[in-house]
Amino acid sequence: QHRCFSSASTLVQRNPSFSTLNFDDISYFKGLLGEKSVIQDEDRLETVNTDWMHKYKGSSKLLLLPRSTEEVAQILRYCNSRCLAVVPQGGNTGLVGGSVPVFDEVIVNVSSMNNIISFDKVSGILVCEAGCILENLISFLDNQGFIMPLDLGAKGSCQIGGNVSTNAGGLRLVRYGSLHENVLGLEAVLANGDVLDMLGTLRKDNTGYDLKHLFIGSEGSLGIVTKVSILTPPKLSSVNIAFLACNDYSSCQVLSASKISFLGINYAKLMQNNSSAYHFLSSVHQKLLMEAKRKLGEILSAFEFLDTEAMNLVLHQFDGVRNPLPASMHNFYILIETTGSDESYNRYLFSAISANNIYIEFINHKNSCREKLEAFLLSSMEDGLISDGVLAQDINQASSFWRIREGVPEALMKAGAVYKYDLSLPVEKMYDLVDDMRIRLGDMAKVVGYGHLGDGNLHLNVSAPEYDDKILEQIEPYVYEWTSKHRGSISAEHGLGLMKANKIYYSKSAETVQTMASIKKLLDPNGILNPYKVLPHSLNS
Amino acid sequence: QHRCFSSASTLVQRNPSFSTLNFDDISYFKGLLGEKSVIQDEDRLETVNTDWMHKYKGSSKLLLLPRSTEEVAQILRYCNSRCLAVVPQGGNTGLVGGSVPVFDEVIVNVSSMNNIISFDKVSGILVCEAGCILENLISFLDNQGFIMPLDLGAKGSCQIGGNVSTNAGGLRLVRYGSLHENVLGLEAVLANGDVLDMLGTLRKDNTGYDLKHLFIGSEGSLGIVTKVSILTPPKLSSVNIAFLACNDYSSCQVLSASKISFLGINYAKLMQNNSSAYHFLSSVHQKLLMEAKRKLGEILSAFEFLDTEAMNLVLHQFDGVRNPLPASMHNFYILIETTGSDESYNRYLFSAISANNIYIEFINHKNSCREKLEAFLLSSMEDGLISDGVLAQDINQASSFWRIREGVPEALMKAGAVYKYDLSLPVEKMYDLVDDMRIRLGDMAKVVGYGHLGDGNLHLNVSAPEYDDKILEQIEPYVYEWTSKHRGSISAEHGLGLMKANKIYYSKSAETVQTMASIKKLLDPNGILNPYKVLPHSLNS
Ligand SMILES: Cc1cc2nc3c(=O)[nH]c(=O)nc-3n(C[C@H](O)[C@H](O)[C@H](O)COP(=O)(O)OP(=O)(O)OC[C@H]3O[C@@H](n4cnc5c(N)ncnc54)[C@H](O)[C@@H]3O)c2cc1C
Ligand SMILES: Cc1cc2nc3c(=O)[nH]c(=O)nc-3n(C[C@H](O)[C@H](O)[C@H](O)COP(=O)(O)OP(=O)(O)OC[C@H]3O[C@@H](n4cnc5c(N)ncnc54)[C@H](O)[C@@H]3O)c2cc1C
Repeated sequence: QHRCFSSASTLVQRNPSFSTLNFDDISYFKGLLGEKSVIQDEDRLETVNTDWMHKYKGSSKLLLLPRSTEEVAQILRYCNSRCLAVVPQGGNTGLVGGSVPVFDEVIVNVSSMNNIISFDKVSGILVCEAGCILENLISFLDNQGFIMPLDLGAKGSCQIGGNVSTNAGGLRLVRYGSLHENVLGLEAVLANGDVLDMLGTLRKDNTGYDLKHLFIGSEGSLGIVTKVSILTPPKLSSVNIAFLACNDYSSCQVLSASKISFLGINYAKLMQNNSSAYHFLSSVHQKLLMEAKRKLGEILSAFEFLDTEAMNLVLHQFDGVRNPLPASMHNFYILIETTGSDESYNRYLFSAISANNIYIEFINHKNSCREKLEAFLLSSMEDGLISDGVLAQDINQASSFWRIREGVPEALMKAGAVYKYDLSLPVEKMYDLVDDMRIRLGDMAKVVGYGHLGDGNLHLNVSAPEYDDKILEQIEPYVYEWTSKHRGSISAEHGLGLMKANKIYYSKSAETVQTMASIKKLLDPNGILNPYKVLPHSLNS
Repeated sequence: QHRCFSSASTLVQRNPSFSTLNFDDISYFKGLLGEKSVIQDEDRLETVNTDWMHKYKGSSKLLLLPRSTEEVAQILRYCNSRCLAVVPQGGNTGLVGGSVPVFDEVIVNVSSMNNIISFDKVSGILVCEAGCILENLISFLDNQGFIMPLDLGAKGSCQIGGNVSTNAGGLRLVRYGSLHENVLGLEAVLANGDVLDMLGTLRKDNTGYDLKHLFIGSEGSLGIVTKVSILTPPKLSSVNIAFLACNDYSSCQVLSASKISFLGINYAKLMQNNSSAYHFLSSVHQKLLMEAKRKLGEILSAFEFLDTEAMNLVLHQFDGVRNPLPASMHNFYILIETTGSDESYNRYLFSAISANNIYIEFINHKNSCREKLEAFLLSSMEDGLISDGVLAQDINQASSFWRIREGVPEALMKAGAVYKYDLSLPVEKMYDLVDDMRIRLGDMAKVVGYGHLGDGNLHLNVSAPEYDDKILEQIEPYVYEWTSKHRGSISAEHGLGLMKANKIYYSKSAETVQTMASIKKLLDPNGILNPYKVLPHSLNS
């Protein structure tokens, strides 16, 4: 039995050392968890066997819903002894085929473990079960005057356990850092059922090897995460958002070239004539980012971009979404968010220097974070870095700006088949790849670029009416080779899953991958946890 | 052969499976590295056999100074095949006996590998060899308009490889995060000589397990770090420092109790009468920190504290150091630093709203970060959280404030014998331990508390004219038990080294420690790297 998902590289053979489920297994699980938590219903299984993109599909016959760490431990202990393969599944929003079975693996979902265990208002440390949905945690913290250090488009479904297991990045990483920083501790169950209690709640703890980092981003292949302790920053009062269009004053050809490409006219020739213009453009981008980091320094909380293709897609796919800069189309759109502690500052300033009345009057009616952003925008415009821009006037407008950026993945899904690549690249090289892909693909497909510019993270998406091996051949391995040549990462934040398990060598050295495989073998000797994923199939026993 | 360092728990037996150096070994190393890099000189060996505190002393006969990763690899390959034990040593400023041999281990120091490999001004990513001294990196970056995300008192000697290997925290962690966040990649040589190239230079990379985290904080027991890639923040123009004294308005008994203790009068009785006052005091502390985090939010870059004992010690031990708040002695002193991007803001504000002249005049002559701090201080004083405070007027005064805080460890060394404990504790409990220790020790020794309040990190130090087992018996295991009971960490930032290898269970579960030991065994099967350190001796083969 073998499966192939749209590309020869994901051809996998079922590991014959895994058992298949039998009646006794089902009885055991029913005895352990109760009937209601042992799901064999076909419709429900259909859903959990299929990934968010409808690209990967397994044929699991069993979904288990444990309610406690002890139940998770018992499930794994049993599966390990029986050599039954297991897929840990969270909100099933992963984008690399990691969260669904490849064959008949048992699906374990901790969605019933969704309690908040504790929250400390002094330190901002939240401890919760792994099945908590990200959006619920965000709302809970909002009431306490705190925020989650991560936010992403899938927040309504994804679980914190899934976020940790994929080391999700998202929209706020540029400000609050990655989960390797913010996750203070976790509890995980190993393949043999042993529970590792690493659920520290301390900002600093240098007692031995910091094993939790192994589980952050290991995509369910080393253990099931059952509890998480996370440092949350205080909610600051002044959030401002600007939506900008990137300048192209040096070259109106650049702008028109981009438009022509969108209309399906051969791009390759134009590009050859305009490559220097393009180079300039990317350096403008880069300069804008540098300026933002320096001038907005500590208040910068997001620096996202989308290109004109992405913008058009969102405008076409969603009713009611409008271009905030409708005068003309631009090559690039940038969303900048700043977050600061302004209001209290103003208030205290009042009490601070009450001798100088005029001064206080003015200050008190202004918002210095907002002004900082305004000033940055004006100066960037003067310097020719941006060609147009608007500052959100209220929370509704702010959400509408975010809606555009966050709507891109969904719009791509609506538009048909989509090949998704999530790459880390040096900022100055990043957009060259989008251009190169447009040349390669010509009329075959639309190439869309967007992502987390502030982190050097490009989401390169190729959109076509339907999946087609000819398109795929033009993309892979080209995109991986390109990325590797520029010392980038072939997965900035989505992980490797099934899609890229065999591609790891594009970003990691042979010795490093070998060491990963040894660690996998050490912690999961039978390889029952999320088989066929993350590491090359040749290394998975 | 066995060694015992001031406490029964550090009684160790030389591992008989290790070889002893012979003439052939020396010839091999001379052939490999050249005469000059193979040190057998007695004076130099004396230095590198002794730790910074003069508390731990080994008897190594050999110091090796490799100049390249390849040389490090060859050294380890050879030592591994010969079963020669090795101690990786950096600047030898570690405080837990981890950087010196216990017996006759070969010392390997990468101090000759001190080149900066690359620096990218757009991204702020620095790549350098592990032997670079922290202070040199700080100066290099300063010229480029950037800063190191970590800073600590030992910067003049410690190496970045040593910082990474101890996961050093230091003075800026509250703002810039830990090395788990800022180290983007590293190169390490395993015990068998294999080189792991994990030297990524990307903000985000989710391709497989992030193995670099295993080496961050592993204290030389899993590999020798040879290169480091690190994300450095831009230098911001507005740095402001305040030196505060903590309020005690609720209870002048509290103040006097502390003074009396310093004069050697029995503290225990006073404490019993005043425990509620003390509780209040710690909640005031805590409130100040919460307020600072919220009101200074994004600009807070250090929140350090020292108690009156620590202040007195510094004032006594160093000529020329003066108390910035000389009017009277206070219980606690707090150093708050803010770092922001002010100047450019003001400049741009000028060009932004040039219509309103009065406003611009005022803004342009003010420094809003400084005002924010001023306002915070005034309101904290009004609220009774602090009793006195001063803002540094220039860079000299700023350094003099830092000199006091950074001078504490050195002053303690000058004062005689010192027992050092580096603990993470919930902020609200933190100072109770100092009080408890004073009660336990009475007149036997002075108890000094200082540290990184912003991170919940207490440096508890017991100072006595000389080392005395009676004192030690009063401290250990009490301090570890106390910390464990409050779910703290017995090593917030210094690591475990030799001093606390056997104490790990106070902070980590048995299963977790067992997993650490399995990973040690996997990566260093002969246990040649920094033996007797980090993990309990019973687990080290
Ligand atoms: C619209 C949209 C936007 C997105 N935006 C971003 C983004 O900005 N940044 C980003 O990084 N990602 C993004 N993603 C992908 C991202 O990986 C997921 O949204 C999220 O982190 C996965 O969480 P989940 O609970 O859905 O996990 P799943 O998809 O269910 O699982 C993902 C992986 O984690 C494992 N796993 C899940 N739960 C556990 C557990 N408790 N223990 C052990 N292993 C577990 C699974 O086995 C699988 O390998 C986006 C996805 C969508 C659909
Ligand atoms: C005055 C003073 C102030 C300090 N302040 C702080 C502070 O604020 N915060 C803090 O966290 N620490 C502090 N420390 C202790 C801190 O651990 C060290 O200063 C520093 O991080 C160690 O670096 P080093 O190069 O001196 O390493 P060493 O002391 O030489 O070694 C420390 C450990 O790392 C290992 N090691 C060293 N280099 C390598 C390498 N290249 N590869 C593998 N292993 C290696 C050693 O084997 C040893 O186990 C302070 C120390 C002093 C003396």
